[in-house]
Amino acid sequence: MTQTIKARVLVTPRREVLDPQGDAVRLGLHSMGYDEVADVRVGRYVELSLTGSRADARDRVREMCERLLANGVIEDFSFTLDEAL
Amino acid sequence: MTQTIKARVLVTPRREVLDPQGDAVRLGLHSMGYDEVADVRVGRYVELSLTGSRADARDRVREMCERLLANGVIEDFSFTLDEAL
Repeated sequence: MTQTIKARVLVTPRREVLDPQGDAVRLGLHSMGYDEVADVRVGRYVELSLTGSRADARDRVREMCERLLANGVIEDFSFTLDEAL
Repeated sequence: MTQTIKARVLVTPRREVLDPQGDAVRLGLHSMGYDEVADVRVGRYVELSLTGSRADARDRVREMCERLLANGVIEDFSFTLDEAL
């Protein structure tokens, strides 16, 4: 069945990789008085609207992540699929 | 009760705002043969580890989003709180 599907992709730096952007945000928050912040990691959020079947979408979105949206050397990804309203 | 809490923040461009990064990703995916992709929006994902009570965390994280993590003029944000394992 063809339908509109929304894929929500999270791309995050791998645990063992330095995250200078996260460090900058943490320091910024500390300087503003948010001393309770122990760690910050900054990643990307990508929302895709696609047409097609849900079964195909899962494989295709995984492929898009591996080929373009995430850099497998330094990043992890995860995603969920929703049918769009 | 003091505990370690993980806040997961999504920052997305507002619907009415142009998203050139999303357009670039969409064109890139089309050029790779993923013609089923109708729309792409690119935002940020920020994971914060904080100490303190859950009740305080909700207000504090909202404030961090408004003051630093998101630009209210052009971006929306949402977040969830989990107790870290």
